[in-house]
Amino acid sequence: MGTVNAARTAKAPQQERSRATRRGLLEAAVACLADHGWAGSTVAVVAERAGVSRGAAQHHFPTREDLFTAAVEHVAEERSQALRDLFPAGTGVATDRRAVVAAVVDLYTGPLFRAALHLWVAASYEDQLRARVTELEARVGRESHRTAVDLLGVDESVPGVRETVQGLLDMARGLGLATLLSDDTVRRERVVDQWAELLDEALD
Amino acid sequence: MGTVNAARTAKAPQQERSRATRRGLLEAAVACLADHGWAGSTVAVVAERAGVSRGAAQHHFPTREDLFTAAVEHVAEERSQALRDLFPAGTGVATDRRAVVAAVVDLYTGPLFRAALHLWVAASYEDQLRARVTELEARVGRESHRTAVDLLGVDESVPGVRETVQGLLDMARGLGLATLLSDDTVRRERVVDQWAELLDEALD
Repeated sequence: MGTVNAARTAKAPQQERSRATRRGLLEAAVACLADHGWAGSTVAVVAERAGVSRGAAQHHFPTREDLFTAAVEHVAEERSQALRDLFPAGTGVATDRRAVVAAVVDLYTGPLFRAALHLWVAASYEDQLRARVTELEARVGRESHRTAVDLLGVDESVPGVRETVQGLLDMARGLGLATLLSDDTVRRERVVDQWAELLDEALD
Repeated sequence: MGTVNAARTAKAPQQERSRATRRGLLEAAVACLADHGWAGSTVAVVAERAGVSRGAAQHHFPTREDLFTAAVEHVAEERSQALRDLFPAGTGVATDRRAVVAAVVDLYTGPLFRAALHLWVAASYEDQLRARVTELEARVGRESHRTAVDLLGVDESVPGVRETVQGLLDMARGLGLATLLSDDTVRRERVVDQWAELLDEALD
């Protein structure tokens, strides 16, 4: 028993290092994809960015597709959780539904959105990406939808509510696309203000 | 005078052939971009697709950037005009505002949208594309906005109307993105129906 426990104790920091390496690779992969697109994103480039050997990177993620789909999923989960944390249970409705709309729209901005966009676009013409990214997109999309419904405090059994929320997420994606090449902040804020008002009325 | 007229007559079919070649190249370029993305789209590939020599293609479009930005602009103009033709002057409002919403949303689908998306995404990390595509996007965006305002028969001096229409176009872009990897027709139609209703109420 003493020997087993000692082995366990020795193993714990190693597992922690491995998790930290994995996490570093996922974050570097999203940043790399956001900056350089799919064509400029390889396991080697990400390993260098994360300060990890190429062998170690390939131990965690055997293929380029493994690394980048896992990276987008990891960061999407983190951002979705951060959004939920902004509005602790139930307060979304009570406090400010328009603030929820603005925060949901903000999910579709920044490096995560750019990274996801590069991955989707590459998947449209690269066969080895297509099935995986389609499945990933569906999973992340369902989670974003559920988060939006929960935070808005709406009832999807009411006719039209589901489609109203879906349209909001589609609008958010479109707004994300509009920020790709130039700073669209001023226009974006006006659109979000106006639609938060329209949605607030529609969802009552 | 006789000689000049003869020269003119001889020149007319040549100009017509040149226009047809140019047009064929533009259409092949959009199809190529939609199918293969920016990485797989070169002047040589497009020339072959259009059945034109590479030299002839380069005579019309000296650089890859010239060809593909001109192609997206040409097809965007054609589709915008086709949309206007669907609703001859003034009938948009009188007949069915929801049909206008659906038709405007349809601008952001199919090969043109895919081609434009590939170009935008490539422009986000390719310096020689960025300025040109940013400018092109702004121009095409203004034209789509003007078309939507005209066909919906709305008054942009009324507070909120401008942002309501912009949000519609953002949603349309987001819906276009959702159709990139899988057939999203059923969900899409429901969202468009619901949002057309919200817009119809908001714009009254």
